[in-house]
Amino acid sequence: MQTTINYRYERSASRLTVGAHLFGILALILLLVWLLHYRGGIDYDSDNSDRVFNVHPFLMFFGFIFFAGEAMMAYKTVMSGHKVQKYVHALLHLVALCSGIFGICINDMYSLHSWIGLTTFILYGLQVPATFLFSRGMSESSRLRIVPWHMSMGRALLYLSICAALTGLMEKFAFLRISNVLGRRESHLINFTGLSILLFGIFVDLSVALARYV
Amino acid sequence: MQTTINYRYERSASRLTVGAHLFGILALILLLVWLLHYRGGIDYDSDNSDRVFNVHPFLMFFGFIFFAGEAMMAYKTVMSGHKVQKYVHALLHLVALCSGIFGICINDMYSLHSWIGLTTFILYGLQVPATFLFSRGMSESSRLRIVPWHMSMGRALLYLSICAALTGLMEKFAFLRISNVLGRRESHLINFTGLSILLFGIFVDLSVALARYV
Repeated sequence: MQTTINYRYERSASRLTVGAHLFGILALILLLVWLLHYRGGIDYDSDNSDRVFNVHPFLMFFGFIFFAGEAMMAYKTVMSGHKVQKYVHALLHLVALCSGIFGICINDMYSLHSWIGLTTFILYGLQVPATFLFSRGMSESSRLRIVPWHMSMGRALLYLSICAALTGLMEKFAFLRISNVLGRRESHLINFTGLSILLFGIFVDLSVALARYV
Repeated sequence: MQTTINYRYERSASRLTVGAHLFGILALILLLVWLLHYRGGIDYDSDNSDRVFNVHPFLMFFGFIFFAGEAMMAYKTVMSGHKVQKYVHALLHLVALCSGIFGICINDMYSLHSWIGLTTFILYGLQVPATFLFSRGMSESSRLRIVPWHMSMGRALLYLSICAALTGLMEKFAFLRISNVLGRRESHLINFTGLSILLFGIFVDLSVALARYV
């Protein structure tokens, strides 16, 4: 009976990863439509400061959050041995870390978005290398003891990064609205992008946690 | 060995609830200082529309999010039998639901904050009564099967409500800043309030989930 139930939740958890992929890709498409069609495009090396700025939301969502989320789900999505899953998990986190380093954009440290964003990135920037370094010299039993803390920290960081993304969208939204350049369509687009990012986070989180609830 | 580890995580989980209480109370104090000292006070029945508006953040954080979080932790914080814990859990959720009904404030459905907030409240407004109704006629084994879903749904809703609170703070922040009425002190106060709310959410979530990771 217990095995049947566990199996049921494992299956549900892998269905949740499908949901996470879908919401992640949906958020990416909506974000690209917003940045390319409404906000003048994305260009790292341009005279137009808006286009340079647009690199930030793109890299922070697609490069950082999306890859970090995929890394968290690697143990469920990669149909292979534990060792391969572990390498994919580490590789995807490295991609996320590098994207974050290129994508972070500190104009000022005034708003709630910048506070949450920088906190997230510093903690993430500590967790990824710390995991690499500490887990090397550890015995199997110490490693197993660390796992719940590593997962909890990772989940909290995902939570933080989603909050950073949403406060960022909300900040941009408020400035565009006050400047009277925000039409009804663009505002809906921003909101749907925000909801998709939020649902991506929820699905990643549940897929990681659900099978462990039994 | 397994029992020792489980016990260790149970102890850690109850320490996390202490962290949750502290951040919850800190957030409440900061929010009150902000609303009472910087934003003109809180009054449900006033001619000053700002004071009437201030009821909304107060009730939505203290009445809704804080009580819902405490309800989620009741199984860890109430040192009593399972039945008493269950009643406290239900009672605190009812207080949260009622506060939400009084505190919700729909001026327009334009911003990301309003979208996330209303989604959260509708889903919460379905989950609480649905749990009361469905769990009554259920056998013990069906109930046990539902628990992981109930917990996952609850955790996702906590996640949503924290995002609603932070986007709300960010929206107000941006409008105050654009209107040039936001000093350095007030902006720091808003940011610390936001971070405390976020940490409250993370601590509640981890205290519920940590003991289950083993």
